[in-house]
Amino acid sequence: MGKTSITIKEIARQLGISKSTVSRALRDSSEISGATKERVIELARKLNYSPNPIALSLLKNQTHTIGIIVPDIDNPFFSTAISGVEDVAYSRGYHVMIYQSHESYEREMADVRHIADRRADGLIVSVASRSLHHQHFADLQEGGIPIVFFDRASNEVQTHKVLVDDYTSSFAGTEHLIEQGCRKIAHVSGPMSLAISRNRCNGYRDALRKHKLPQRDEWVLEAEYNQAGGTERAYQLMALRERPDGIFAASDRIAIGVHWALRQLGYRMPDDVALLGFSDLGVSSLLDPPLSSIAQPSFEMGRQSAELLLELIENKSTPVTYETRVLKTHLQVRGSSLKINAPVVQASAEIPEESYPS
Amino acid sequence: MGKTSITIKEIARQLGISKSTVSRALRDSSEISGATKERVIELARKLNYSPNPIALSLLKNQTHTIGIIVPDIDNPFFSTAISGVEDVAYSRGYHVMIYQSHESYEREMADVRHIADRRADGLIVSVASRSLHHQHFADLQEGGIPIVFFDRASNEVQTHKVLVDDYTSSFAGTEHLIEQGCRKIAHVSGPMSLAISRNRCNGYRDALRKHKLPQRDEWVLEAEYNQAGGTERAYQLMALRERPDGIFAASDRIAIGVHWALRQLGYRMPDDVALLGFSDLGVSSLLDPPLSSIAQPSFEMGRQSAELLLELIENKSTPVTYETRVLKTHLQVRGSSLKINAPVVQASAEIPEESYPS
Repeated sequence: MGKTSITIKEIARQLGISKSTVSRALRDSSEISGATKERVIELARKLNYSPNPIALSLLKNQTHTIGIIVPDIDNPFFSTAISGVEDVAYSRGYHVMIYQSHESYEREMADVRHIADRRADGLIVSVASRSLHHQHFADLQEGGIPIVFFDRASNEVQTHKVLVDDYTSSFAGTEHLIEQGCRKIAHVSGPMSLAISRNRCNGYRDALRKHKLPQRDEWVLEAEYNQAGGTERAYQLMALRERPDGIFAASDRIAIGVHWALRQLGYRMPDDVALLGFSDLGVSSLLDPPLSSIAQPSFEMGRQSAELLLELIENKSTPVTYETRVLKTHLQVRGSSLKINAPVVQASAEIPEESYPS
Repeated sequence: MGKTSITIKEIARQLGISKSTVSRALRDSSEISGATKERVIELARKLNYSPNPIALSLLKNQTHTIGIIVPDIDNPFFSTAISGVEDVAYSRGYHVMIYQSHESYEREMADVRHIADRRADGLIVSVASRSLHHQHFADLQEGGIPIVFFDRASNEVQTHKVLVDDYTSSFAGTEHLIEQGCRKIAHVSGPMSLAISRNRCNGYRDALRKHKLPQRDEWVLEAEYNQAGGTERAYQLMALRERPDGIFAASDRIAIGVHWALRQLGYRMPDDVALLGFSDLGVSSLLDPPLSSIAQPSFEMGRQSAELLLELIENKSTPVTYETRVLKTHLQVRGSSLKINAPVVQASAEIPEESYPS
């Protein structure tokens, strides 16, 4: 955050008021008295004879720009969510600047710094898997730029969040594999640094527990949310003496890697191994056999994140309580897990979605 | 461009010099004398007592930010090119702001305006298919913000361009279908407003001409560069009395739509219809049968675009001649077009790429 914090801190110190009062005064918040605002703005102007674009822009009007940081734009889940954000933002006269963190902590911090420097009105973010701390988000918020999290949220920052019910969805998905006759079910999870990964894993574990099925440490492997991770973990799982007869992958990108590996190794899906993913990317229905998956409303998640952010931007006052919206998923059963009724034919008759990512 | 042009125009008018001299003076160009720079900057300061963020930032240093506008980030060709841009930009201390035009002229103009307002140091762009004119790019360039085009370039704007040889690649791809025994070859082109679409179509036509194969108007259909376009066109083509035995699609997204339609209609690839795409997206090799395609070096296109742009940004002087780099493609033959030697098994043994988009 660098410059922003220092400026606000300095103004706060000189006036003997809190940093948050300063930042709200600079944002023309209705919670701050006119007199305080004047004192803050006067001092801010005085301190800003040296070129400081952030501080200058703090004294100006809104930029009608929101930033969005996602781990990877080439993940269709995120690109579709971005389209949802744009849908709301553009219709209300806001511009959207897109950034990708590539799952890197350093890159994410640099992106946040850039958003502060370029003075966006707010930020929508899905946290990078290698983000160790979330102080950069807290700093941004304190600097007067509101944040909304979607999908991957921070527990350290109090604000609006738009999620899906990862635990319940994963529980239901695992039960579906059990209903199909799977008894040795493995899980390729995402990085455990992310709450979504932990929640999906817990849903899986509790479903096995409920049905009194065996749980083995070697059946739960962690991977990055990408295809290469899925391929590598599938090779490890199928090499085990007790190999699984069902695999629940914590994302479709992981599942596509597993799918590819299983085909290479000569396994038939779903008879040898039933496979279930998470996100229901457009490409998943085109695989052979088509991939069963837990569908997330990614466009709607983006829309609602933008709505909540614009509320924070336009109302100016800090809300009494922040909202966590949990959207519904649904289980999309296809040939990779459905063992009865010639599922392949049925599934390939689906109309592909317009938002299909390639 | 609004404010930027007006300011520069006004300064130019008052000093009796050209707009380009003003813009270069504001950029501290080595081509402009110290005396002129001083006069320009003095007047610029004078004219800028009213808040004008662009004009203010013109007087400041670089922002170390480059903007990139692509039609759709969920097209892996573009997202991979963006990663190439970021690769170069970040290693040289620049930040990348990503925008998508969604093929819309209005959106593209708004993006360009935003880039000017937010004062990026330069712009990399692949033009929207519904962009009617390119004056907004010319204005940006005149305002002192250099541009590099990649893949979809503007003929109206003189600057560096990074392309592939669409004509030659398409000629060679069509010849490949002819070598496989196809005699009635159709083409699903992209929007003819784009030079890449016209060049790909010409390569197809000239290959048919060279081999004295029939050309029929109803075998050349235009579509948007997406899956839905391909599906619709494939239904039209296969409904013809003289249906094609080979289809060359101007992009993989179109080809994937064709692929889906052909499977729905009960055709076998490649025996009934051989199919060839363009771009070689990661997903293409996962289809059944895997899709033959003309592979474009998208990451490298992004890298080289960034290198050329940073040269323009950092050298400050306008180069004597602009460069058009034409990168090599290669024909990736897979099961959808290869009629001999059990191609499916061979193709599915390929290692999927890390950059695979799902």
